[in-house]
Amino acid sequence: MAHLLSTTCSVKISSSYRPCGQPLNQVRTALPTSFTIQTSKSPFKRLVFQGDRGGRSFVVRATAAPVRQEVSAQSGSGSNLSPNEPSKPQRVMIIGGDGYCGWATALHLSNRGYDVAIVDSLVRRLFDHQLGLDSLTPISSIHNRLRCWKATTGKTIDLYIGDICDFEFLSETFNSFEPDAVVHFGEQRSAPYSMIDRSRAVFTQKNNVIGTLNVLFAIKEFREQCHLVKLGTMGEYGTPNIDIEEGYITITHNGRTDTLPYPKQASSFYHLSKVHDSNNIAFTCKAWGIRATDLNQGVVYGVRTDETSMHEDLYNRFDYDGVFGTALNRFCVQAAVGHPLTVYGKGGQTRGYLDIRDTVQCVELAIANPAQPGEFRVFNQFTEQFSVNELAALVTKAGEKLGLDVQTISVPNPRVEAEEHYYNAKHTKLIELGLKPHLLSDSLLDSLLNFTVKYKDRVDRKQIMPNVSWRKIGVKPQTVPAN
Amino acid sequence: MAHLLSTTCSVKISSSYRPCGQPLNQVRTALPTSFTIQTSKSPFKRLVFQGDRGGRSFVVRATAAPVRQEVSAQSGSGSNLSPNEPSKPQRVMIIGGDGYCGWATALHLSNRGYDVAIVDSLVRRLFDHQLGLDSLTPISSIHNRLRCWKATTGKTIDLYIGDICDFEFLSETFNSFEPDAVVHFGEQRSAPYSMIDRSRAVFTQKNNVIGTLNVLFAIKEFREQCHLVKLGTMGEYGTPNIDIEEGYITITHNGRTDTLPYPKQASSFYHLSKVHDSNNIAFTCKAWGIRATDLNQGVVYGVRTDETSMHEDLYNRFDYDGVFGTALNRFCVQAAVGHPLTVYGKGGQTRGYLDIRDTVQCVELAIANPAQPGEFRVFNQFTEQFSVNELAALVTKAGEKLGLDVQTISVPNPRVEAEEHYYNAKHTKLIELGLKPHLLSDSLLDSLLNFTVKYKDRVDRKQIMPNVSWRKIGVKPQTVPAN
Repeated sequence: MAHLLSTTCSVKISSSYRPCGQPLNQVRTALPTSFTIQTSKSPFKRLVFQGDRGGRSFVVRATAAPVRQEVSAQSGSGSNLSPNEPSKPQRVMIIGGDGYCGWATALHLSNRGYDVAIVDSLVRRLFDHQLGLDSLTPISSIHNRLRCWKATTGKTIDLYIGDICDFEFLSETFNSFEPDAVVHFGEQRSAPYSMIDRSRAVFTQKNNVIGTLNVLFAIKEFREQCHLVKLGTMGEYGTPNIDIEEGYITITHNGRTDTLPYPKQASSFYHLSKVHDSNNIAFTCKAWGIRATDLNQGVVYGVRTDETSMHEDLYNRFDYDGVFGTALNRFCVQAAVGHPLTVYGKGGQTRGYLDIRDTVQCVELAIANPAQPGEFRVFNQFTEQFSVNELAALVTKAGEKLGLDVQTISVPNPRVEAEEHYYNAKHTKLIELGLKPHLLSDSLLDSLLNFTVKYKDRVDRKQIMPNVSWRKIGVKPQTVPAN
Repeated sequence: MAHLLSTTCSVKISSSYRPCGQPLNQVRTALPTSFTIQTSKSPFKRLVFQGDRGGRSFVVRATAAPVRQEVSAQSGSGSNLSPNEPSKPQRVMIIGGDGYCGWATALHLSNRGYDVAIVDSLVRRLFDHQLGLDSLTPISSIHNRLRCWKATTGKTIDLYIGDICDFEFLSETFNSFEPDAVVHFGEQRSAPYSMIDRSRAVFTQKNNVIGTLNVLFAIKEFREQCHLVKLGTMGEYGTPNIDIEEGYITITHNGRTDTLPYPKQASSFYHLSKVHDSNNIAFTCKAWGIRATDLNQGVVYGVRTDETSMHEDLYNRFDYDGVFGTALNRFCVQAAVGHPLTVYGKGGQTRGYLDIRDTVQCVELAIANPAQPGEFRVFNQFTEQFSVNELAALVTKAGEKLGLDVQTISVPNPRVEAEEHYYNAKHTKLIELGLKPHLLSDSLLDSLLNFTVKYKDRVDRKQIMPNVSWRKIGVKPQTVPAN
C-alpha cells in the first residue's frame, strides 16, 4: 500500500517527571455517588460519576467535545490511510483500555485523531494485588494517566469504569459513547492465571465468554453497524503439523471441497476461552450480520510506543512474572538482573511474536479497514516466528553487547505442550493492509534490554520462576503466602 | 461384534395404573432441613436430606446397598457385552437424569445391572413452568419415578438434587457416590431456548460451560479413572460441503498431513456451548489424562423404551412445543391433532436422527467400552439421515394408514441455516461397538404416531408454532403472557 509513513521509531523518554495534577481518584472519594460537574480547568469537559448499583460497577465517565485533529505527518507509527480509502470510523471504544495492549492502543488511536473511550473494570490491577505482583515499570492510576494525556497532548479519552459482564453497565456505555468500532481487549488474558486453580479457570471462561456475548448483544441492540475488533490469540491454533492459515482452511475431502474454520487446539483454559469467543462471534456475524475482525495475536514484547513514552504517567505496564509475563519480556528482565534465562523444557516451542508498536498499528489498520456486515474476518497478528531457544540466544547475544553475562537453564515445563514441533503460520493479511513491522533486530533488543536494566532494582526475584502447573491445578483455592 | 442380543423390541404399556406409593416430595415438605432416616418399607435404604446452603442447592440423597443383578437375557435392548471384554464399570452417575434422554438412560442402565445415581437440579421442570409448557405425556415427580422403579423392579437409583455449577454440591455427589463413569446430560439442551433473549443465551453458555468444567475438575480431583461420557450434538458440525467425520479429519495441506479436530460451525448459542464443552474436554484429556467420550447425538425421536413403558409413573417426557420439541416428535403431534406439519422454509435441512431406544444403547456401549486415559473419543450418535421434507412425507404416509388427513405447510424459518445443502455424516463407530439400530420404518412411525394420538387431548395448540427467532433475539427479557 502506498501513502504509508516511515516506520522509523523516534522514542524519547522524558528524563524529568512532569506532574500532571492531582489523581482523579482522590477527587472521587470526596464526592457523592452521583453528580455531574462542568469545569473549564479540568482536562475533562464533563465528568459523570455514577455510584454503585448493586455492588457491581462504578462508572467514571469523562466526556469531551470530539477531538478530530488531523493525523500528524510526523507520527512515528507505521500505518496511515490513503485519501481514497473509505472514511475511518471516528469513535472507538477500547474495552480493557487500562491493560498492557489496551492502554498503548488507546493512546495511539487518540493520537491519530480517533475519539477514544476506555471501558475497563481495572480488575487487572486487582490481580496484581491479590497475587503479590507488580509491573516492572511504575504505572499511574487510570485517572492520572488520562489527566496526563490531556495535559500532554490536549486530547481527551473518555473513561467508563465497570464490568462488561454487567449488561446494564455495558448498555450505558454504548448508549453514551455510541462507538463506531469496539476494540475488545477486556478479557482475562493470562494462560497461567487460568491454570492456577478451579476458581480462576472458571472465572476466566465465564468472564471472557459472557463479556464477549454481552458486547455482541450490545452491538446488535444499540449499534448494529459498529465494527467489533476482537483480540484473539495465535494460541487458539495450537501446533498442528500443517501450515496455519488465517482463520480458515480450504479442505478437499472425498472429492468435495469447502473452506472451513481452521481447526483449533488450544492448550489452556484461557486459550480455550478465546476459541469459544471466536466461535460465538462467527455465529453472530452469520445470524445477525455483525461485522467483526478477529486479531489472532502472537506474543507481544516491548513496552514503549510513541505515546506511552511521552511522560512517565503514560508509561505502560511491563509484566515479567511467571503468571502475566510473556517470554521475551521475561528473558530481558532475567538477563538484566543476572538470573539465568528460564527455558521451559527443550525450548523448541515456536510461536509468533510482535512488538507492541505493531499491536497498535494492527488495531488501527483493522478499524480503518472494517469488516463488511456479516463478515467474520481473521488476521494472524504477528511479525516473526521464534523458538524459545532462539529467543534465549538472541537475548544472550544482545546482553553480551551490554556487558551482561547471560546464562540459560532449562526448567521443568509447567505447561502441557509440544517442545519440538513444526510451526509455520501465515501472517500476510495485515501486511497487505499496510503493516510495517518493527522486527526484533539487535538494536530493538538492545533497546528493550536497556529498558529492563534501567528498572532492574524494581524486580522481585521471587516472581521470576514459574509457579503454575498445567498438571497440578486443583480445586483448592490457591492463596499467596505473605513471605 | 458377537454375543449381541436380538434387537427385537417388545414394548408393553400397562393398561392399568399401579400406584407406587405416596410421592416422596410430600414427605420432604414435612421434614426438617437435615436428617437421616432408616426404613425398611421405603424403596430407599437410606435417605439423606440436606438443606439449602446459601440458597444454591438441595440434596436429596437416597442410597441403597448396590444392586448387582445379572443382565436379563430377555432384555429387549440391542447391546450386550462379551464375557471376554473388560469388566464394565459398575457405578454410573447420570447428570441430568430427570430429562428426556437422561431418564431413559438411567432406567436402562439400572435395568442392565449398573449402580446408577441421578444428579439433577430439576431446572428443566422449572423451564416448563416459566414458559407455560408441558410434556405431552404426564410425567411423575422424580421422587415418585424412583419409588416406582424400586417397586416395579426391585432396583434402586440414587438421587442427588442440586446444581453442578455449584462445585461444593458436585464434590459431595462425587465423594458420596464414587462413580466409575459419568454420563453428562446436565445441560440446557434447546437451541430455541438459547435464542429467546440475552439472558437465556448467557444462561445457556454459562450453565453448560461451567457445569462441564466442574465435572472435569471433579473427575481430576476425586475420581481420575472415571470415564466421562458427554452428550454432544451433531449440530456442532453445521452443514459443511464435505463429508462429516467422527470428531477428527485428516488434512493434507501444502504437502504436510495432520489429523485435527473436525472444524465446527454451530448455529445457536446452545450448539456453540456444546462446541465449547468439546474443546474444554479435549484439552483436559491431553493435559490431565481424562478419559472421555463425546457422543455427538442427532435429533432424538420417540418416547418409549423397555423400561419407561413398565409403568405410567416411569413414562418419559415428550416435548412437542416450539422450544423443546424435536422435529419428528413435533410432526407426529401435529398430525395427531390435525395441525399442518410445519416445515421451516424450503425443508431441505438434513440431519441425523435416532430412536431414543438407540440413545440408551449407545450410552451403554460407550461406558461398557471406555475411552483410554488421555483419550478424547468422538462418536457420531445417530442411525439415519433425513431432510425435513422427507420426514414430513413419512409422517404423511403413516398418518394416512391411521386415517389421518395430514397436510404440510412451509412456515418462515425462525432459524438461520442453509435450507438446501450437502450432508453426509459418518456414523460407524457405534455400529462397530455393537449398536443395533431401531430404524424409522413405517411400523415404528405408526407406533410413535399412535402414541401421540393417544395423548392428543393434552396438546396445547398454542405451543405448536415456532415463536423464537434467531434474528429477532434481543436484550429485553422475554416474558410469557398468561393468555
